[in-house]
Amino acid sequence: MAEVSDKIAMIVLFGVFIRYDEESDTGRWLELKKHENITSDVENDFYFRYPSFQDVHVMIFVGFGFLMTFLKRYSFGGVGFNFLIASFGLQWALLMQGWFHSLDHTTGKIYIGVESLINADFCCAGCLIAYGALLGKVSPVQLMVVTLFGITLFAVEEYIILSLLHCRDAGGSMVIHAFGGYYGLAISWVLYRPKLHQSSRLNGSVYHSDMFAMIGTLFLWMYWPSFNSAITDHGDGQHRAAINTYLALASSVLTTVAISSMSKKKGKLDMVHIQNATLAGGVAMGTSAEFMITPYGSLIVGFACGIISTFGYLFVTPFFEKYLKLQDTCGVHNLHALPGMLGGFIGAIVAASASEAVYSKEGLINTFDFEGKFANRTVGTQGGYQAAGTCVSIAFGIVGGACVGLVLRLPIWGDPADDNCFDDEVYWEVPEEEESIHPILEYNNHMVHKHQDISESNFSVEQS
Amino acid sequence: MAEVSDKIAMIVLFGVFIRYDEESDTGRWLELKKHENITSDVENDFYFRYPSFQDVHVMIFVGFGFLMTFLKRYSFGGVGFNFLIASFGLQWALLMQGWFHSLDHTTGKIYIGVESLINADFCCAGCLIAYGALLGKVSPVQLMVVTLFGITLFAVEEYIILSLLHCRDAGGSMVIHAFGGYYGLAISWVLYRPKLHQSSRLNGSVYHSDMFAMIGTLFLWMYWPSFNSAITDHGDGQHRAAINTYLALASSVLTTVAISSMSKKKGKLDMVHIQNATLAGGVAMGTSAEFMITPYGSLIVGFACGIISTFGYLFVTPFFEKYLKLQDTCGVHNLHALPGMLGGFIGAIVAASASEAVYSKEGLINTFDFEGKFANRTVGTQGGYQAAGTCVSIAFGIVGGACVGLVLRLPIWGDPADDNCFDDEVYWEVPEEEESIHPILEYNNHMVHKHQDISESNFSVEQS
Amino acid sequence: MAEVSDKIAMIVLFGVFIRYDEESDTGRWLELKKHENITSDVENDFYFRYPSFQDVHVMIFVGFGFLMTFLKRYSFGGVGFNFLIASFGLQWALLMQGWFHSLDHTTGKIYIGVESLINADFCCAGCLIAYGALLGKVSPVQLMVVTLFGITLFAVEEYIILSLLHCRDAGGSMVIHAFGGYYGLAISWVLYRPKLHQSSRLNGSVYHSDMFAMIGTLFLWMYWPSFNSAITDHGDGQHRAAINTYLALASSVLTTVAISSMSKKKGKLDMVHIQNATLAGGVAMGTSAEFMITPYGSLIVGFACGIISTFGYLFVTPFFEKYLKLQDTCGVHNLHALPGMLGGFIGAIVAASASEAVYSKEGLINTFDFEGKFANRTVGTQGGYQAAGTCVSIAFGIVGGACVGLVLRLPIWGDPADDNCFDDEVYWEVPEEEESIHPILEYNNHMVHKHQDISESNFSVEQS
Repeated sequence: MAEVSDKIAMIVLFGVFIRYDEESDTGRWLELKKHENITSDVENDFYFRYPSFQDVHVMIFVGFGFLMTFLKRYSFGGVGFNFLIASFGLQWALLMQGWFHSLDHTTGKIYIGVESLINADFCCAGCLIAYGALLGKVSPVQLMVVTLFGITLFAVEEYIILSLLHCRDAGGSMVIHAFGGYYGLAISWVLYRPKLHQSSRLNGSVYHSDMFAMIGTLFLWMYWPSFNSAITDHGDGQHRAAINTYLALASSVLTTVAISSMSKKKGKLDMVHIQNATLAGGVAMGTSAEFMITPYGSLIVGFACGIISTFGYLFVTPFFEKYLKLQDTCGVHNLHALPGMLGGFIGAIVAASASEAVYSKEGLINTFDFEGKFANRTVGTQGGYQAAGTCVSIAFGIVGGACVGLVLRLPIWGDPADDNCFDDEVYWEVPEEEESIHPILEYNNHMVHKHQDISESNFSVEQS
Repeated sequence: MAEVSDKIAMIVLFGVFIRYDEESDTGRWLELKKHENITSDVENDFYFRYPSFQDVHVMIFVGFGFLMTFLKRYSFGGVGFNFLIASFGLQWALLMQGWFHSLDHTTGKIYIGVESLINADFCCAGCLIAYGALLGKVSPVQLMVVTLFGITLFAVEEYIILSLLHCRDAGGSMVIHAFGGYYGLAISWVLYRPKLHQSSRLNGSVYHSDMFAMIGTLFLWMYWPSFNSAITDHGDGQHRAAINTYLALASSVLTTVAISSMSKKKGKLDMVHIQNATLAGGVAMGTSAEFMITPYGSLIVGFACGIISTFGYLFVTPFFEKYLKLQDTCGVHNLHALPGMLGGFIGAIVAASASEAVYSKEGLINTFDFEGKFANRTVGTQGGYQAAGTCVSIAFGIVGGACVGLVLRLPIWGDPADDNCFDDEVYWEVPEEEESIHPILEYNNHMVHKHQDISESNFSVEQS
Repeated sequence: MAEVSDKIAMIVLFGVFIRYDEESDTGRWLELKKHENITSDVENDFYFRYPSFQDVHVMIFVGFGFLMTFLKRYSFGGVGFNFLIASFGLQWALLMQGWFHSLDHTTGKIYIGVESLINADFCCAGCLIAYGALLGKVSPVQLMVVTLFGITLFAVEEYIILSLLHCRDAGGSMVIHAFGGYYGLAISWVLYRPKLHQSSRLNGSVYHSDMFAMIGTLFLWMYWPSFNSAITDHGDGQHRAAINTYLALASSVLTTVAISSMSKKKGKLDMVHIQNATLAGGVAMGTSAEFMITPYGSLIVGFACGIISTFGYLFVTPFFEKYLKLQDTCGVHNLHALPGMLGGFIGAIVAASASEAVYSKEGLINTFDFEGKFANRTVGTQGGYQAAGTCVSIAFGIVGGACVGLVLRLPIWGDPADDNCFDDEVYWEVPEEEESIHPILEYNNHMVHKHQDISESNFSVEQS
């Protein structure tokens, strides 16, 4: 029901506010072409944003969705609720981001194009990150609430950071990852379940569920260069953002593997690290990908974050659970919150150390958009604002998340019992047959009491 | 064998008819550049169609393929025969569509480029939809026959609808989904199996097979904006088609989830609905995506079709099976036939209500292509023709499907026995090990007769 | 550890050598625009290479990665080590290819852009092919060595073939597939394990692992047109390469299915053939995709290679194992080595038979790049060089592989014991639960010998 009424409200709001922008509206596109002497329809921005948009779209729905299928009996919830959250979130995001960023005050309308779709998907990413911390412990209705407030908070902090503080954050280390990560962690902290161990039997993966999660990991990893370059300036900006992200990600993989194997007896690798820490380089490059961080700078960022993120999974998450009473199902702290925060500060440093020698005078202005009322800002000041922006995103995440968490503690949301967490049975019609794995165990337990020769059963096994 | 002889015939026909078009032929591209003062190779249409083509390509092979892997023991057939049908179909489609749409009567050749590849993939989609209704009940040879005739019928109805009636159908609500859906349903109706219940044990999903199906669902869902915009007019047309489809799909997800949870006791969600009905919005936007349907119009379409499609799965499919003797394995009626038909009529309404105020004079002409001998057509007339086109596609599907069904009833095609349906064992070398799940059940059944005492364990199997 | 030191060395080398190229460096892009009167940022090559790059990127990480998950208990290793190899390889490739192809001798720097990323991914493909032959039989450290030398050999043979011999090899039939295939086969031959049958129980697939492998197959198959067109000349070259590859691949599928079903009793299909031989057409079109091979020519190539590759799986691989003492886990000989070699010779024939009548004078020069010191080369000579290039790639593969194989025989690499091959347990923390399938078998086998209170089997369940 919630969804239906939501949708009707959404339709009304879209009817009142949302219109096609001048590149997607027939008449206005014709005007624009005349007005700006555009000779060909293929100069429409669609052709230079849409491929990146589709890559981002895949990251949101398959990347995040399948990354959260690693739990043995919560794969439906992982990919299914991700689907629900993102589909609801992107519509709400078009409205919220529109109101804060692109509301035309003369007409009172929001004009959307492909870039709006990318931003809407970005906005969802913040809430999906938060979902990662809550995975298996909340109800779909609670997730809708998390998304509703999450998108709203996102639009506000994004407005403050990008518009008021005039920070650059192409790939959203600050506005997406640091915010989303701390938002989810704060909610999870407020919703702490002392008796969660009662469903510990389900809080783990099986062989095939780890393989499904790798689908998510790889699509996130491969398309991250598109994520960080999707809304950067056309030309060298997008080109450089893709290269930097590509290098940082490759670098993360190697250090993650190294630390993971060093941490285990017999040097065995842990799938949890491979599925997550390998992505830290992309998160950390979110802010500085479009800057002249240099190729080896990108490798260093990936190198460091692969190490930090893996150590996070080894030590920080257990520490949080034990001492901070913070249960972080997917370890979003290590994959998003921490690398996002680092990415914000790396961006500040790279910005502060920018120089005309490296960027050229015009290049510096283009890259940092030192125009209008920011024409006189120096790179040093810019660096300071970037750092400030990072703190703002974290503050919004923690405070906002704490408040939303309190709302979610109301006993009206139908969240699962402590011994029903991480279990699809609660919210999904789960097919019977799959159970055919379990009865045997039951059956064996049962046979403990009755002693029988079952060699015949062997025979049938050999036969089959 | 069939395939080999097919292929040789195919090669001969390609040798006689198919040539590169002027954008993919070295010499002719050089001429074209000189002739039209094209200054740069990057103005080749390849760059403005190929990314969309690849998205469509993924929908055809991974989207449709994995969507049909939901059956517990027919996943090989689902993805494998989909692969076979589409690979054969796209070659046949290049010939059939070429003969009907782009045969150069002076040279007697068909000139193909990237747009031809997109259309060939579209053409396959019709047959893959039909396969959805027949899944698990027909032999590969029968599927080749279904494809051979399906592609042929498709080319004819497409010619009538797009060329003679001059309908607009960018995303193929009519020519692809309504046609393909009713084509498959008619075949399935003729091939009705009264004893199909004999393989009912296999006509269902298991946990992992539902996850594989979600891969198909998500790739279809994510890339549908590319599907509906792939062959639209460059510029605002493609841009708008993508936006509208994106919104309609997001809208479908929410209503599908709402209806699905309302329909079950304890508000549990049904994976069948999530896997299918969430896509109905994309189907229904196939015709009107390129029109100025407005963003909220798109939300309304998705909203309505999500509801209708989910109700279809809840009530219509069981009704069909019980009273119409129509077995629709994947429920293509609810996902393709019905939303496709609706999409056709929605397109008719949107076309009829188009106005110069909204489209601008020139925009109206561009969008509906009111040129040449259609220069004087009014939007009202256009709306009428759109509606007529929808009826033509349905008629072709039903009549064509009935005839093909009769051909398939000949006892020469090696179709599976009633108790062997939905079973990969019939057509595939299935690895042994996986059986390690089944013997236990067999063994248990077998033990019922032998030792009484473990019947309890069986009982527990039924229970679980 | 190896990885960490590697990475530090890598960072230093990047610091010394790697810089952004003129399309990704702010200042230099501004200069370039002024200098060449580029009016818009969207003329940056990024927009005309990046979509193909992303497709190739997916092939490398998801395509190759998941194709190697077919083994029942080595899926982690298949996709995980593929991830490791490619991430390391692409960094090393940027350096090696840079030194051999794009080192600016005035500045001593290597300037990288999106095309460099594509080439780096291509370079990795060679090593991933080699991994296919070694799958399950080597340690991660050995794979790093295979990659280190493989990338180096690749860069050298590529330099000889493309620069010195001036061959055309857009999709790398020679430099990627023939080289990579024979490189892996030679290593595997040197590392022959007479007692490998001791892990034969694990050298096979299960139902779900075959489904995961199909994900790899399909993404390779769908994106292969992008692979063969990614670095071709802009304009008609890329356009034609995509069309030819699309047709050859479709053609391979049909003949693979035909031969596969003809080869088995009851005409059953073998997943191994569907997963691999269907791709042979793409490999074989690697060299000639950009030529005017004609659409039906492409069908013929796909037709022939589908047959040859399937026969390879049926007869050649068993023959190799039995008589040549060559264990080829994935059958890379049939999918890469042989079709790659054929592709090289097909390219030679197509080049030799090129004519101005077909290409036009200017087209012929553009396609074969008959400029500078190659201005007077005839197509006949070109054909000869293409054939020579194929032999060079094979020689590099065999000789290089043999040497690397000898290095890998040193007893210092921690490779798995003969009875531990194809087992993730050796290098990965494998989740417990999944074992719930196996204990029963173990338990049953165990019961064959002794009939006892099976509480022990429970115990073994707890243990396992």
